[in-house]
Order: sequence, then structure tokens, then C-alpha cells
Amino acid sequence: MTQRADGRTPDQLRPITIERGWSSQAEGSALISFGGTKVLCTASFTNGVPRWLTGQGKGWVTAEYAMLPRATNDRSQRESVKGKIGGRTHEISRLIGRALRAVVDTKALGENTIVIDCDVLQADGGTRTAAITGAYVALADAIEWGRQRKFVGQKSRVLIDSVAAVSVGIIDGVPMLDLPYVEDSRAETDMNVVVTGRGLFVEVQGTAERAPFDKSELDALLELGVNGCAELRDHQLAALGQEA
Amino acid sequence: MTQRADGRTPDQLRPITIERGWSSQAEGSALISFGGTKVLCTASFTNGVPRWLTGQGKGWVTAEYAMLPRATNDRSQRESVKGKIGGRTHEISRLIGRALRAVVDTKALGENTIVIDCDVLQADGGTRTAAITGAYVALADAIEWGRQRKFVGQKSRVLIDSVAAVSVGIIDGVPMLDLPYVEDSRAETDMNVVVTGRGLFVEVQGTAERAPFDKSELDALLELGVNGCAELRDHQLAALGQEA
Amino acid sequence: MTQRADGRTPDQLRPITIERGWSSQAEGSALISFGGTKVLCTASFTNGVPRWLTGQGKGWVTAEYAMLPRATNDRSQRESVKGKIGGRTHEISRLIGRALRAVVDTKALGENTIVIDCDVLQADGGTRTAAITGAYVALADAIEWGRQRKFVGQKSRVLIDSVAAVSVGIIDGVPMLDLPYVEDSRAETDMNVVVTGRGLFVEVQGTAERAPFDKSELDALLELGVNGCAELRDHQLAALGQEA
Amino acid sequence: MTQRADGRTPDQLRPITIERGWSSQAEGSALISFGGTKVLCTASFTNGVPRWLTGQGKGWVTAEYAMLPRATNDRSQRESVKGKIGGRTHEISRLIGRALRAVVDTKALGENTIVIDCDVLQADGGTRTAAITGAYVALADAIEWGRQRKFVGQKSRVLIDSVAAVSVGIIDGVPMLDLPYVEDSRAETDMNVVVTGRGLFVEVQGTAERAPFDKSELDALLELGVNGCAELRDHQLAALGQEA
Amino acid sequence: MTQRADGRTPDQLRPITIERGWSSQAEGSALISFGGTKVLCTASFTNGVPRWLTGQGKGWVTAEYAMLPRATNDRSQRESVKGKIGGRTHEISRLIGRALRAVVDTKALGENTIVIDCDVLQADGGTRTAAITGAYVALADAIEWGRQRKFVGQKSRVLIDSVAAVSVGIIDGVPMLDLPYVEDSRAETDMNVVVTGRGLFVEVQGTAERAPFDKSELDALLELGVNGCAELRDHQLAALGQEA
Amino acid sequence: MTQRADGRTPDQLRPITIERGWSSQAEGSALISFGGTKVLCTASFTNGVPRWLTGQGKGWVTAEYAMLPRATNDRSQRESVKGKIGGRTHEISRLIGRALRAVVDTKALGENTIVIDCDVLQADGGTRTAAITGAYVALADAIEWGRQRKFVGQKSRVLIDSVAAVSVGIIDGVPMLDLPYVEDSRAETDMNVVVTGRGLFVEVQGTAERAPFDKSELDALLELGVNGCAELRDHQLAALGQEA
Repeated sequence: MTQRADGRTPDQLRPITIERGWSSQAEGSALISFGGTKVLCTASFTNGVPRWLTGQGKGWVTAEYAMLPRATNDRSQRESVKGKIGGRTHEISRLIGRALRAVVDTKALGENTIVIDCDVLQADGGTRTAAITGAYVALADAIEWGRQRKFVGQKSRVLIDSVAAVSVGIIDGVPMLDLPYVEDSRAETDMNVVVTGRGLFVEVQGTAERAPFDKSELDALLELGVNGCAELRDHQLAALGQEA
Repeated sequence: MTQRADGRTPDQLRPITIERGWSSQAEGSALISFGGTKVLCTASFTNGVPRWLTGQGKGWVTAEYAMLPRATNDRSQRESVKGKIGGRTHEISRLIGRALRAVVDTKALGENTIVIDCDVLQADGGTRTAAITGAYVALADAIEWGRQRKFVGQKSRVLIDSVAAVSVGIIDGVPMLDLPYVEDSRAETDMNVVVTGRGLFVEVQGTAERAPFDKSELDALLELGVNGCAELRDHQLAALGQEA
Repeated sequence: MTQRADGRTPDQLRPITIERGWSSQAEGSALISFGGTKVLCTASFTNGVPRWLTGQGKGWVTAEYAMLPRATNDRSQRESVKGKIGGRTHEISRLIGRALRAVVDTKALGENTIVIDCDVLQADGGTRTAAITGAYVALADAIEWGRQRKFVGQKSRVLIDSVAAVSVGIIDGVPMLDLPYVEDSRAETDMNVVVTGRGLFVEVQGTAERAPFDKSELDALLELGVNGCAELRDHQLAALGQEA
Repeated sequence: MTQRADGRTPDQLRPITIERGWSSQAEGSALISFGGTKVLCTASFTNGVPRWLTGQGKGWVTAEYAMLPRATNDRSQRESVKGKIGGRTHEISRLIGRALRAVVDTKALGENTIVIDCDVLQADGGTRTAAITGAYVALADAIEWGRQRKFVGQKSRVLIDSVAAVSVGIIDGVPMLDLPYVEDSRAETDMNVVVTGRGLFVEVQGTAERAPFDKSELDALLELGVNGCAELRDHQLAALGQEA
Repeated sequence: MTQRADGRTPDQLRPITIERGWSSQAEGSALISFGGTKVLCTASFTNGVPRWLTGQGKGWVTAEYAMLPRATNDRSQRESVKGKIGGRTHEISRLIGRALRAVVDTKALGENTIVIDCDVLQADGGTRTAAITGAYVALADAIEWGRQRKFVGQKSRVLIDSVAAVSVGIIDGVPMLDLPYVEDSRAETDMNVVVTGRGLFVEVQGTAERAPFDKSELDALLELGVNGCAELRDHQLAALGQEA
Repeated sequence: MTQRADGRTPDQLRPITIERGWSSQAEGSALISFGGTKVLCTASFTNGVPRWLTGQGKGWVTAEYAMLPRATNDRSQRESVKGKIGGRTHEISRLIGRALRAVVDTKALGENTIVIDCDVLQADGGTRTAAITGAYVALADAIEWGRQRKFVGQKSRVLIDSVAAVSVGIIDGVPMLDLPYVEDSRAETDMNVVVTGRGLFVEVQGTAERAPFDKSELDALLELGVNGCAELRDHQLAALGQEA
């Protein structure tokens, strides 16, 4: 079997760590690592919902993604200094929000808002997938926090499933799981897969970076991604002290 | 077979028209309609490339997408008035640019830049897919314009394939092709598929808007999308006066 | 008599077309052409008025002007990308709004707001005057739309007059009507005249681009402008299916 | 004859003062008053021209207009705090620049730039006309400064004429000169006239604020304006120590 | 004793003038000069307080500092044109606001807001200290204005003390008072001291511009500053027609 | 002796930890904690200097401070989302930069730039002082990195001293060292002191938050601050593996 620069097999994740409750300020938090990629996810629980949602008895979950200026190998200018948020940042923030909402029963959440901040402290590929995976843990704890304070009904099942994400790609013709920066930048095709704990797709985003791809390649990537997400689900459950 | 509100079968496109050369100012242009969705695509050809690409002997193709404030049923505020571009606009502009670059041999283009502007004059679902499909026609004409002026080599094959895009989605459990607004807003799952003239995938973006989806649903949507794009390719070739 | 590059006499308008009801989304709309200049005017009718006008029993009419990036011969950067609206855009938007309000009885309109968007799809001189002339048609239809839905009183006379606009200028010492770009850029003096259907001035903006002008030149330009606007009024009435 | 609130006749200017050389920092400056309206005009002379003008042997003159937040009766928010310049500010800055350039021979100025800042310290109507009138004095001194340092040719005639401006308007049917705020806000028609020392028009901007106006009203306003500007020219010459 | 370029002794202020009531629009105003530094301070009194303070029976005092573009020897770009306020401007605005609030009993002010605008018309060092010193005079008059209109209780003592500020610094090893630009730019250590009429510190901001400083240098600077502020207090009282 | 809520004596620091080299991307880095306050400091070394400094043979050191949105007890909006940097952020960034430059010999650094990013991951008072103290460690390592790659002369002494900072304040009349949020928000007087390893002042910023203070209070605070900084210097040296 092909061996990768870091010694992994093509279908192997990087070392995953989830430091649950990293922040003493937020209602839920997790510092997650996918190898050298480290993302701090915090969940802020507040009563009430944005004006456009008021009075419908539903809650709201949204996310904001950002990267510290020196998370990457070269320092990039802060978006606050530029005075605007870049397209990539917007796109990933929207992706994380959609992924989380796919497993939340907003009726059960009640008129409460949870904002998840995913700040990349160090980047080595797969930051958006690490963010989604860590955000789920922070979200779960924030919901539990709301439940303990009776902002959320005691018996409501707010989380209808778990959700995790991973990147997959084809490098030198070989489909591979969980790409670090060095592989990601060489991939012919690059895909991010967001999968629920039960194995259903929430989001599939595949892009031909170098060469258009066919159906069989697509299928191979999807299979790798589904299996990777199943492993990540186990890490999430372990961090949350739940049984698989 | 299920019949849709506008009388189409699930695998049928809306009426497609491509008015090639709509603009007398741009080097290439097309006013494309997918039913009630109308997008004006113009291609601007200039010599030289952005600084970061200079001296590599390669050209650059990029795109900007925008919507007129009253393209939609409710008027929305102009992004120029807001002072910033929204996440959705950024995301779609980036998608169009990637889709076009996937069929361009930038070496053959030489150190020239083509900017494609896709302005939605009227919106009724599928604006990004109409934009990609029309942009290809404007791009092809701009390249031809450059060739006639010898900015591009006479024998270079700049376009290595054609590219088109279409939306697909599952409504009430039925996979359907080319969704107008009324269907798009009800879809359980929504996918945009970008496919080359030869039938290879350039981009696959599927999102569970209401319910996570499984592999068989994904496969059904992909098949619809591939077939829809093949029909759009024929419209493109006809507009360009080329043989299928 | 002097003949112009496009074969017109000095006091002749370019070919004028007004495609009323171009948009199926807006309450009123017109795609107007003054020769190669094409402006899409849409009118958006909403109940209520801006906060500063609330409770006075009066309506509000305002306008926003913009140009597609490749409406002109060279592509210009989008104002949404620059993050701010340029001085010229602001100035023209304000001019269009003032011109329209001059013929509207805001009491008769009631507490309703009409926003007119004038988007230049192709530019060849005189875009602001074409915008005003087309905007009047869109405005008239939006008021009628409001009347049919009883948002506006059945007998109220909201439009107290019609309004049209045209550019005039002195080129090589000869006063000329309705300047295309090639003439406009050479004019010694440039003037925009906004005139009501009854022949009264709403706005007179004359600028010495190359040489200060005297009273007799001013008078000659005003006469040309008044006559040009009378012709445009006839085009407006024809488009609206009204008698002159 | 009609008497005005401040005791003036309709064709009389407010008390005019021009404090030449107010600033010890700028190359030219004037603090001008039209009654309660006070504008500080400074001219900044620098060698070189903006990039787009380089190498043509011509100079550049431009202007920026602004108002202190409490120049007016109610405090308005600073444009620097809003983060953008309003349409009115843009429009007036452009007007001042055009008015000054109309009397400058940019070839004679050579490749030098003069920026005129007109900051309204106190506002009581007619701020843009006071700004133009004061700016001319500051400009004349900055050109002289450049001449003394040999940045400008000793014999070149840079200023081909002088320029001044005044507001006129119709109040209760009576044409009046130099409107303070209380008259300006009631005027049926409002006009700003920019006239050279020789009596030629540089700019005529008339707006029907309340009622469209006819040719005879326009003529009456123009005559008032031309006479008012002739008086202002005498004030300018006196301030500059030149003979009329 | 060391003599300075302008002939002063190290412990001597520049000529101070305070033109109280300069503006006829503002509720309080002062044009203050510290030598060549001239700052126009206006105080705007309005009923009500910002939302975050509502209902607590307390008033609010805040300040905004800005500089005209040609206040300095080289013209700088307007912050409104840049689209954002610089760090230095923000910092000084906040300092002025804190200094004034230190001598205001906000309970006695009642739910009223006073905004102080400090606009530097000409700059020659010490603009922030001149601004604070002049702002106090404008503030005192605005409070009196409110008292006369019964917005402020007749017997309330809103101002619990006066406040003034001055710069001090070490130049060539000698501590000096009230630095003009030429000294400020050479200072090894630079300090701004804000002191109440009774001689207590409100703010002490010392910075080692060239060389870290020790406790004895700090003490020498503080003594100079306290004495300078006592003199400025006498100028303030004189301007306000109060006894020392 | 007074005991504080967290059991410290008035002159005692909170537990200090410095995790040197936290980032694998930056040339120097430190994750510093002052009790619950955690700041990630990274130093980015690049060749060359900003344009305004080019050709003088000197280097440049600058800093940017920011706070994650949920570093605090309530979530605050991102400055990138607001589209501008707040006054407080600007002020602190400038302070950190000045503090570091006070101990750098920019000639010895050569034409190289070091940017220090201080991102507050968790905030509990004293974030700016923790930032300065941690930034020194990151800076020292970045200089060493440059030395090893010969970008900096082998024998040059770039750091002429170390630098640390701490907050002090008077609470209920008692001067105290290193205030957590709960104390900081109650302090009558608040001061930040920046001191070099040799005990000289770089910056002294004292503010009367509630009551103006006298010279003896100022002296007491300064003494506490100097002693606190001496302890912090020992922590810095230990982290850097240097002898005290």
C-alpha cells in the first residue's frame, strides 16, 4: 500500500485530540487537533433569536470561522485590518453553520441562539473539517448548559444526530483521507465530506483542482470520507463521555 | 411520471435561450435564460496578468457574480451601498471562476487575463448554474477575439473542453432537474453539478437543506445533473455555431 | 447644416426605444435605449416610508443609479468590490430622485415608498438622462400597480406631470442634442436638462468642460434641451399607451 | 422693494470677509465669511502629479470639501466615523475642483499638484459658494508660492481668469441673492452660479426644490448671480492686493 | 538657565489664548491656542443618553478629536477618505473624554448628553493637551446653557472641579514644559499630564521615545506638568469670567 | 495584610506560565498566562522593512493585538465583521509595539521586520500586560532564528534589555498588583507600567477611573509595578533558558 510522507496509509486519519472544555468563559468549548491543525471552538449560548426568527418558537445555530494571522507558514493580514472578510472565510463560516443545523432540532432548542466560533490557532490542512468536528462537541456542551439552566426543555432531544467532517482527495492518482497542507496543495481533486453519526451525507463538496474526475473516483472518495467520519464520531463521543 | 408546477417532467430543463454577443462593448458576451432566470455574461480581455502570476507564461481567468437589487421578488440592498460583498456572492464568484479555469489551458492563453462578469438581471432559481453556462459562451468569444488580434497563438487550443452547470434537487422525495425558485426553496436536498462537455465532473456541491441524504439519492441526483449538462452543452455549441 | 458622425442633425435625438414591463419581478419596469445606451429601470413599491417621514401622510420616491462593470469600453471595478460608492454614482442617484419627486404629489401617494433602480447595462453617453426618462415609465406603472391594490387612492392624481431629460452640449462651437460618448468627451460645454411634460425646468446643470460660456450659448442649449425633452415625452406616452 | 429677514435687499450680498493667509502651514489659505458661513480654505502645493497624468507636462488642481460636525445647528456624525463620504460631500468637492480648474492653465502650472481643502467651520447657507470664492484666493497664493520657488515658470500665466460663486433662489416668488440657511430651506427654486472675473459661466446648477420654473425665472436668477459674482470678484482682488 | 528655540525658559508655557463662544451654533465653544497650535472645541448638548445608559438617571460626556488635513506641515489624507479612523485619533478622543468625565458629576448632569468636538485647525505640538484645556471651557458653557433651559437642576453642581492638560518632556537631558512640534519630535521622553484645578492627577501618560527613564526624571516631569496645569487653570477661569 | 478574593496579598502576582515555542509555524512564539488571562504571542520574521524605512539600515518591530470573540464572559462581535478596528484595539497594539521597540537596537537588527501578533484566547484582566510580557519571549526567539540564518549579524546585540509589564491599581484605597477583571472593574485608579529588566520605565499610563489621585498614591503604584515587573523578568528569563 502507498505510504504517505507522514507514514500513514491512504485511509488513515492524522492523530486526533479533542480537549473538551478548554475555555472557562464559554458555555461549551473544544480545542481540537487533526495533526498540526489546531482549532479552538467555543459555543456561546444566549436567550432569544435574531429578529427575523422571533416568535416562531425556534432556535438558531450559526458559526463564524477565522484564522489567526500566523496560523499558517506565511503571516497573512488580519481581516479586521483589511476591513472586510474574505470570500473563503465567509464560505467556510456558512458551511460550518449549515453542517451543525443539519443535526439540530431548532424547535426543541426553543428561542435560544448558539453561536459557534471556530478560530484556527495553527493550520496544516483540513481546518474547516476540524472546525466542524470540534464545533459539534462545543455545541453539545452548550445545549447541555442550557438544559441545566432550564432554558431548554429537560426532555427535548435537541441533537438528532452527531456530525463530523473530513477532507479526502486524489494525489498521484491515489484517493487519500485527511490531507495535511503538503498533500492538499498537490491534490488533483479535493473533497470535503460532512457526515452524520448515522452515516448520512450533510454536505459533499468536490472540486477538480487539477483534473476533472469521473464517477468511480467520486465514489472512492466518498467511501473514504464516510469511513473517516465514522472514526471521528468515535473521538467525539469519547470526548463527550458518551458511549459509541 | 410526476408533473411539475410548470408542466415539466422531473428530468426536463426549463426553456434555454442564449443571446450571444448581446453587448457591443465586451470582447465576448451572452445573455442567457434558464426560464425566468436571466444572466448577462460579459468577458473582458486584457493583456497582462495579476502581479502574482507575472512571468510564468500563463494567463488568468476569473469571474465576478452579482445580482441587480430588483432581480428578485423582494428588492435587496445593493452590496455597493452596504459597503461589502456578502458571503453568497463571494462563494458563487469563486465557483464560476474555478469552473471556467477547469477547461482553460492557461499556458495556451499566454499572459492575458479574462474577467467574466455575470450579472443576474432577473432571478428565478439556478442563477449560478445559468451564469456558468453563459459564461462559457462569453469566454469562448473573448478567446477568439484575442486570437484574431494575435494576443493568443493561432494554433493554441486554449479551451480544452466546454463546461456547463445545472441544479438538481429532491422535492417530496423525487429527484428533479433545474429547479426554479419555488422548487428550490422546498427542496430537501439541493445540488449544483458542474460538468465538462465530455461528461467529467468539475464540481459537485450537495447540501442537505432539510434532511441528510444517502448514497443512492446522491447517485440519482448526479445522473440527472450529468444528463442536464449534456443538453446545455448542445445549447452552447449551437449558440457558438459549432457542431455538437 | 452640420452633420454628425452618426449622420444626425444637431437637433436630432438618437433612436429611442422603451421596452415597458421588461421585468416580471418589479412593480414597474422599462428597458430604455438612447442609441447604444441601455438602462434597465425597475420600480419597487412597498408600503410604509422611511422612519424620518413616518406619520406625515406622505410617500417617498428615491432612486439608485449604477453601472455594470463592463457597460463601458474599458471594464471598471465594481463599487461593491471597492467597498464604496463613487462621487459620480451618488451625484446621479440624487439627481434622478429629485427629478422624479418634482412630478410626484407625495400626499396623493400616501405612506408608500417607491425605489427606482436604474442599472446601466451598456453605456454610450447620456446614461443619466436615459435613466430619468426610463425611470418615469417604471414609476408610472408602479403607481398604477399600487392603485389597483388600493394602496393608493383611486382618484388621487399622484403624477402631476411627466418628466424627461436629455444632454446637450457645444462641440466645435455648434450646440448639439443628445450626445453619444464620442461627442460628450469632446464637448466644450456640457449640459443636462430635466424638463416636465408641460415644458418647465426641473433641473439645469451646465458645466464648462473646456471653455466658460456666455448667456447666448446657454440660451441655445436650453432651447435644444426643451425641444428634445418634448420628443422624449411623446416616446414615454406612447410606451405607456397614453395619448400625447 | 422686498426686505429680507436680515434687512438686505434681494440683490444684496451678506457681509463678506476674506482673511488671507490664515494658516501658517499651508502654501495658500483664506478664512472666508459670507455672513454666518465661515469656511477655511487651504491650498497645498506639491511637486508631481497623480500617476494617470504623469509625463504630459500638465499640473493638477483638485479640492476636498467637508464640514465640521457642529458647523450646523444640529450636530451631525463625522464622515470618518461613518466610514464613508456622503453623496453631498462628494458632489460639492467635485464642483469646487471643476470651478477652479476652469481658470487654471494646467500646462503653465507644470507637473505640480495643488489640493484645496475647504473645511466649513460654521454653516449658514451657501457653504459651497463661499468655498469656491475663498478657494480661489488660497489657490492664487499657492501658485505664487510655487513661482517664488521656481516650481512654476516666472512668466507663465497660470490663472487665466478669477472665479467666484454665489447662490440665488426664488422665495415667495421673489428672486434673491446669497441665501442664508433660513431662506435656502424655503426656496422654491435654488441655483448656484459659478462665474469668472470676466463674467462667463463656469457652472450653472438650478434645481426646482418646490416648483418647476420657467425661462424668465431662470433668466432673473442668472442675472442676480452674475452681478453677485462680480462683487465677490472685487472682494477677492482686494484680499489679494490686486487692482480690480 | 537653558533657553529654548522660541526664547522660553524650560518651565514656561507658550502664549495661551482662549476665544470663548467662537461658534454661534454650539451650546458651548472655545478656540484655544497654545502658541501655533489652534483647536476649535464645540460642545453639543442634547437631551437623553445613549441606550446603554438609559434609565440610570445619569448623563454622558464624550469627545471626538480630529485634525484638518492641512493642519500640519505636510498635508495628510482625510480619515473620511481613508474610510477609517486611525489609532492615534481614537486614542486621543478616548483620552479627552476620560479627562472631562473625571470632573463631571453625571448624576447632577441628569439624563443629558454632551459631545465635545475638538478639531485641530493648526498643529504645532501639544494638540491633545490644548484640546482638553479648551474642551473644559466649552463644556462649562454647555452645562450652563442646559441649566438656563432647566434641563439641568438649578442647584446641581455638575462640574466638581476644572481640568487642564499639558505636555512635558526631556530634551537633551533637560525637562521642559509645553513642547512645540520641533521639541516634541526630539524628546527622549514625552509625557502628557492631565490635572484638576485642585492639583490632582486624572491621567499620566509617559513614554520613553528614545531612552527608558528613571524615577527622578519622572518626578521632575510631573512637577513641571502640575505647575503648567495650574497656570492653564487660571487661563480657563479668566476665559469663563470666574475668579481663581 | 488585606487579602484578595483569590487569596493573594496585594503585592503578589497571579500564577504565571509561559509556554515558549507553542507554535510550530512562527519564528518565535509563547502562550502566556497571568491567571485566567491567556495570550498567544507569535513573532513573524521577514527580510526587508516597510517602504518608509527602506535604505536606512534599520529594522522594524511592530505588534498587533486582538481578542477572540468569546475570550470574555460575554461574546463580542468580531472586528473583521464590524469592518473596523476599535479604538481600544488600536491603542493596545500601539502600546505593545512601543514597549518592544524600547529594548530593540534597530540598527543591530538590520533591514528585517518582526511582527508580533498577540491574540487573547481568554481574558481575565491585564491582557495588554500579559501580551507585552509574552511578546518579549516570542521576539527574543525570532531574533535568534534570524541570527541562526545569518539575517542578523552573529555578534550584534539586538536586544539591549528585556521588557515586561503589569497592571496596578487602587481598590478600596489599597494599592494592588496584577488585577484580574473583578478587581480591575472596581479600581478607583488603574495603571499599566512597562519596565525594562534593568528597572527603567518604558511607559507609565495611569488613569483615574473613579477618583483623581495624588502624588503619594502614584508613587505607591509605581513601586508595586516595578517590583512586579522584576518578577516577570525572572519568568521570562527562565522560559528562555537564560540566567537571571
